[in-house]
Amino acid sequence: MGYRILETDDIPAYLRERGHWDDPDDITVREVSDGNVNRVFLASNASGTRSLALKQALPWVRVAGPSWPLSPDRADAEARAYERLAEVAPDAIPAVHGYDPEHYALVMEDLSDLEVLRTLLNEGAAYGPHTSPTIGRLVARLSFATSDFGMTSADRKALLAASVNPELCEITEDVVLSEPYIEHEHNHWHPGLDDLAAAFRADTALRTEVADLRHTFMTSAQALLHGDLHSGSVMVGVREGAPVVRVFDPEFSFVGPIGFDLGLYWANALVSEERARALGTLSDHADQLRLSWEAFEAEFRALWPSRVDTFFDDAYLDRFLHRVWTESLGFAGTEIIRRVIGFAHLTDLTTLADPVPASRRALRLGRELILHRTRLTDPAAVRAVVDALTP
Amino acid sequence: MGYRILETDDIPAYLRERGHWDDPDDITVREVSDGNVNRVFLASNASGTRSLALKQALPWVRVAGPSWPLSPDRADAEARAYERLAEVAPDAIPAVHGYDPEHYALVMEDLSDLEVLRTLLNEGAAYGPHTSPTIGRLVARLSFATSDFGMTSADRKALLAASVNPELCEITEDVVLSEPYIEHEHNHWHPGLDDLAAAFRADTALRTEVADLRHTFMTSAQALLHGDLHSGSVMVGVREGAPVVRVFDPEFSFVGPIGFDLGLYWANALVSEERARALGTLSDHADQLRLSWEAFEAEFRALWPSRVDTFFDDAYLDRFLHRVWTESLGFAGTEIIRRVIGFAHLTDLTTLADPVPASRRALRLGRELILHRTRLTDPAAVRAVVDALTP
Ligand SMILES: Nc1ncnc2c1ncn2[C@@H]1O[C@H](COP(=O)(O)OP(=O)(O)OP(=O)(O)O)[C@@H](O)[C@H]1O
Ligand SMILES: Nc1ncnc2c1ncn2[C@@H]1O[C@H](COP(=O)(O)OP(=O)(O)OP(=O)(O)O)[C@@H](O)[C@H]1O
Repeated sequence: MGYRILETDDIPAYLRERGHWDDPDDITVREVSDGNVNRVFLASNASGTRSLALKQALPWVRVAGPSWPLSPDRADAEARAYERLAEVAPDAIPAVHGYDPEHYALVMEDLSDLEVLRTLLNEGAAYGPHTSPTIGRLVARLSFATSDFGMTSADRKALLAASVNPELCEITEDVVLSEPYIEHEHNHWHPGLDDLAAAFRADTALRTEVADLRHTFMTSAQALLHGDLHSGSVMVGVREGAPVVRVFDPEFSFVGPIGFDLGLYWANALVSEERARALGTLSDHADQLRLSWEAFEAEFRALWPSRVDTFFDDAYLDRFLHRVWTESLGFAGTEIIRRVIGFAHLTDLTTLADPVPASRRALRLGRELILHRTRLTDPAAVRAVVDALTP
Repeated sequence: MGYRILETDDIPAYLRERGHWDDPDDITVREVSDGNVNRVFLASNASGTRSLALKQALPWVRVAGPSWPLSPDRADAEARAYERLAEVAPDAIPAVHGYDPEHYALVMEDLSDLEVLRTLLNEGAAYGPHTSPTIGRLVARLSFATSDFGMTSADRKALLAASVNPELCEITEDVVLSEPYIEHEHNHWHPGLDDLAAAFRADTALRTEVADLRHTFMTSAQALLHGDLHSGSVMVGVREGAPVVRVFDPEFSFVGPIGFDLGLYWANALVSEERARALGTLSDHADQLRLSWEAFEAEFRALWPSRVDTFFDDAYLDRFLHRVWTESLGFAGTEIIRRVIGFAHLTDLTTLADPVPASRRALRLGRELILHRTRLTDPAAVRAVVDALTP
């Protein structure tokens, strides 16, 4: 049949044909696409006992339309990532019921009883004790399992070849790892940041460090990443009295540096902290980098004895984890900066009555993390930088 | 028709069918396979005006036979590497007339008027002024062209995916980057090296550094490599009065750390120097690391202004080249050591009447290069290490 774009009215027949839904008369479908890139539909029956989510990639960026083509192959990357994640962290992702590569359509668990972490945080919620540890553990499990520690050399080469994600990597290389540091039409910022935006573009030391991180992103094939692990890719809530954390939207997945996943999460945590500070609603924000790192490190160390390649010794593990830590800080810095003076900004800051002081602190923090990442040797050192920030 | 193993008598018909040879009555073929892995035939006409070489990969290691299977896909890797090399360094490789993926057979220029560099060196020849600069330039051109400096991001991802070479990489990971440092049935050495071999296996600092280099080899996707750039992969000679240098046998090619190519060349140069020292025939041996590095660096810097990605600034180039230098030293160290106490030894040393003193110096040098690679900041520092070696 070939690829076709599914509209709301097509979903019942589509789900039935694919074996995901029995009773075509008892189904209601609504579109809930609120991301920028893809379409998401929710289907449910009248009694509310059964529901599903369907995500389809269009051959362009949804909010832009056909004028911004983007290969729907990104849905393959998402499906591949979910496959790996299902093996190592099934409780921390939506259950995937099927992927249809012909239509680039993923049918998965309906998460609409949960809330996107960023939304909750923006409304003043705390992280709670489960979210960041779950993220840290998930990154550890996915990255260990898909590294040369968790897979045989030959399987790794196959994974590497199968997981290239050229168009989405290029987006990151552009919008995160270069544009904010040069003159580019994508960039925009609040006039109250003019001086810092200009200073960053003129900062040759910063540029060289970002070039280094950019090249690391392009060449360091450590493990399969989520690739876009910000607080808009995490849903949280409570089910049957138990806390639930679900990571979704891994369409940027590729084999890259592990620190990129941690760094994105940290950047978004640090920005949410600046929002809370500005609003006077600080609660557990300052703990999240540490909690996610500690969970990551503990899990990675717990998995270490099961490595397939015992030539890697314990001393190398220490060195490797230190490198991941350092690179995570650097990538966190780039993510913060691009979210303030780059293409796509964060509602955490843009919805503040006066976004300028928090944005200035965030920019300075981003710069510090990039420039001094090798000197900031633990979470306490990062705390000291945050505590010393000026607007 | 499918794959079939070509015997000497099959070659005339094969070359004619593939359009490489006109007169089937005027052709003499002889097998010259002297490598371990593949078959090589030379075809020539009676008057000697026309000749060709044909290299075919068998589905096993030639000298071992079917009991050691090895995918003939390695010939694809060789053909891919030659394709790239032909674009950037056509004068430094054999002209390739055609590749037949069905038979894993490569038809190329006959180089039998030249001599393998290792053979010449073992006979007491000097390098001369052209060899090492040609090697350094070739590595610079191939690696620049296939790095994120020389290719667009999307093309690079395609190259990466197409160039995985799992079985041959695994050989390197095993025989170069782990076995010599553990108990392994492949390892063997002269009894006069017992103490050093035991000390190396017990040296935890060395093990950790080798683990680091091993992981770099496995994850650092900087550029397409030759992958096996020792002095047995280089032919030299004179044609029409002009010096000729040809690099061949790139079947280990994959996208990896640039320092691996330089390091292999350096290791073999440093071992040839120890042979010459032992025989009292030292000539220009001590210059080769420096000459190849200087040519590599000069060529890479000359290409830099043509980079496709100008986000990478000059300061980053300096940092990047320094990293390549450091990793090259480390890989050189691993190559030296494995050639003395690992699986496959070098005739440079094994044909010495008493290989022990030169082998001991080589082992100590290998260890120094690995352990202190970050401290040895230029060729003169390496010279100082060589000068201080004891047997
Ligand atoms: N499994 C699900 N259950 C319920 N709602 C979902 C589900 N998956 C996605 N959504 C909703 O659709 C929105 C967009 O989903 P998602 O982030 O996967 O798409 P996207 O277009 O790739 O977004 P982005 O622009 O962030 O990359 C989510 O923010 C969420 O509100
Ligand atoms: N183009 C050529 N012209 C002449 N002789 C050649 C040519 N290519 C290879 N040979 C001869 O065949 C030998 C083996 O070639 P080559 O190194 O490519 O094969 P191999 O089996 O892959 O070797 P190795 O075990 O070193 O990997 C060379 O050492 C050389 O003597």
